[in-house]
Amino acid sequence: MNLSKRIGLLRRRMSGSGLQGLLVTHLADIRWLCGFTGSSAALAVTRRGARMFTDGRYTAQAAEEVAGSGVTVEIVPSGPPVAAVQWLAVQVAAGSDPAAVGFDSAHTSVAELERLKAALPGRLRRKLLTPVKSLVEPLRWLKDEDELAIMAEAAKLGDDLFAHLLGFIRPGLTEAAVAAELEYQARVRGAEGMSFESIVASGARSALPHGRASQARLPRRGFLTLDFGVILKGYCSDMTRTVCLGKPSAREREVYEAVLEAQEAAVASVAAGVECGVVDEAARSVLRRAGMAGAFSHSTGHGVGIEIHEGPRIGAGQKDRLAPGMVITIEPGAYFAGEFGVRIEDMVAVTRTGGRVLTASPKALIEL
Amino acid sequence: MNLSKRIGLLRRRMSGSGLQGLLVTHLADIRWLCGFTGSSAALAVTRRGARMFTDGRYTAQAAEEVAGSGVTVEIVPSGPPVAAVQWLAVQVAAGSDPAAVGFDSAHTSVAELERLKAALPGRLRRKLLTPVKSLVEPLRWLKDEDELAIMAEAAKLGDDLFAHLLGFIRPGLTEAAVAAELEYQARVRGAEGMSFESIVASGARSALPHGRASQARLPRRGFLTLDFGVILKGYCSDMTRTVCLGKPSAREREVYEAVLEAQEAAVASVAAGVECGVVDEAARSVLRRAGMAGAFSHSTGHGVGIEIHEGPRIGAGQKDRLAPGMVITIEPGAYFAGEFGVRIEDMVAVTRTGGRVLTASPKALIEL
Repeated sequence: MNLSKRIGLLRRRMSGSGLQGLLVTHLADIRWLCGFTGSSAALAVTRRGARMFTDGRYTAQAAEEVAGSGVTVEIVPSGPPVAAVQWLAVQVAAGSDPAAVGFDSAHTSVAELERLKAALPGRLRRKLLTPVKSLVEPLRWLKDEDELAIMAEAAKLGDDLFAHLLGFIRPGLTEAAVAAELEYQARVRGAEGMSFESIVASGARSALPHGRASQARLPRRGFLTLDFGVILKGYCSDMTRTVCLGKPSAREREVYEAVLEAQEAAVASVAAGVECGVVDEAARSVLRRAGMAGAFSHSTGHGVGIEIHEGPRIGAGQKDRLAPGMVITIEPGAYFAGEFGVRIEDMVAVTRTGGRVLTASPKALIEL
Repeated sequence: MNLSKRIGLLRRRMSGSGLQGLLVTHLADIRWLCGFTGSSAALAVTRRGARMFTDGRYTAQAAEEVAGSGVTVEIVPSGPPVAAVQWLAVQVAAGSDPAAVGFDSAHTSVAELERLKAALPGRLRRKLLTPVKSLVEPLRWLKDEDELAIMAEAAKLGDDLFAHLLGFIRPGLTEAAVAAELEYQARVRGAEGMSFESIVASGARSALPHGRASQARLPRRGFLTLDFGVILKGYCSDMTRTVCLGKPSAREREVYEAVLEAQEAAVASVAAGVECGVVDEAARSVLRRAGMAGAFSHSTGHGVGIEIHEGPRIGAGQKDRLAPGMVITIEPGAYFAGEFGVRIEDMVAVTRTGGRVLTASPKALIEL
């Protein structure tokens, strides 16, 4: 991972926003900017310096992880964000306009902002902190070669786990038992954890877009939706497959084929420069033509990386444009409450000319 | 779970704070107040009414879970918090002082507050929302009989898992393999998930208070710290045991005995009416006398319930007083960087006369 350039990329964005300093408190942003993986930190960036504050639990780890990022580390007894904002105040006090220090308004609570302000000298209290949104995250949207290699590896692990589950799944198992096997195999094969609570939704529960694994037992006949991801070297994977226990009905097959066609149409629409809303519409129009517009109740996808849900959002009307290096999910679905649902999801890396699908598991309907 | 009284308890606190209405957005609070377990909701409470807003994914689930809580459900196409605040504005508009609607400043970002204000009519925008901290959480600190029964069950599952691991652990296994087995068995035995990322820290890594399971292999000789919890029926358990692979050195045994004495002293100090800082000092003074004050680098414990970390905080100088129904952890430790560490943790339910220890696993040093 080439960390050395990242603070520089952020400084360019800070300049563009007229900021002399920035307080970064969102841990995913801190990890991306300087490599630190601990659970407590704040990063202060000025036009010339960058310092990360953390506590004594992380002395050794911080020194090791942050090396090469151009960020210095300071261990503080408590309250890294307060220490960071006080350091920023000193750094910019010499400057002409002390108001131009940004904080992340999307990841700072109202109470935390009050605490930060109270820690500043009176003269700066009212002026110093400027709310800023999304200054770091859009940088994270664009993965470099090393990140893309890790994400391909994470997607491959997802494929391997799905292949394993195909040999494990049988009627009568609880959904929770399937999730247990999935998560056990993920751990044994090197995952640091799961990206989110695994969805194992069988029979009528497949109509729940967020059907977390329950004590329900897999039926002899019906759909089973598996939506899961692993965390590998700090990056999330995300994939969904819907398989059929026993023979599908004509209606089930019809819905499955429509969702698959929608998914493939959206994947085919991916390319640098394309608006996210266009990719969403590629999936949505297929389901609309199939008379299933109302059954597709969510967006087509989202960016993925250090966090399972990042931008850009692949939803109706979204104007963000895809760019090379983005990794997004394409996951249309159709849900019929009380009956069944289908969702199919791949991870796709955006390239100059199209999309490279990172998920390699088969998408033709599998009957078990 | 007797949900019907909870909104009433909250209303009493609202009156005490002079609030006509309250916007509840923290999901753990919503779950406690009305039983809803979905991932997107906002709850609006006035002196007479209570309405929960969620989206179409949760239509059936919300109706079922919220029944009996005295809360009505409204399904909205997007943005439950905005819908909730608009409903609150209408409810209190007739009242004399429309400024008295609280929002949770600890769980509302600066950006989210701006979004909420923008959704209000101009007349109310500047006045309606009052920052409020910790109005619901202290209610959650006091567990009722049903909650205590679930938490005892969750602690028991933790004990069973620890007993299972004692037969599984052997030198040469990776820490991740131990975590995989732990989490697999937890799932199979009915846990909905783990309360937090399992800590499996062996050898010198036991000196890391937050040593997440890594690819490091268990040594033939040395300490192994296991700190984990399960989620059962929505409630978290939390326990830590440190065991020894092979024979402990005299120094290791000395440290272990000191930590155990500190842990038992703190447990013995638990009773309704006692200040949390007194419980912390009970542990800390033992380690101080043993010359290990500097090695105990964190607080003695914390409340636990729907969230793994709740109040009250059992730390130095904390003035909150223990009350019957609180469930806290008691988890002193001593850490020697590059060498080893020891931590021992139980869950303790506060009773009128003392503390009922929910964790039943043995605490005498186990050699494997």
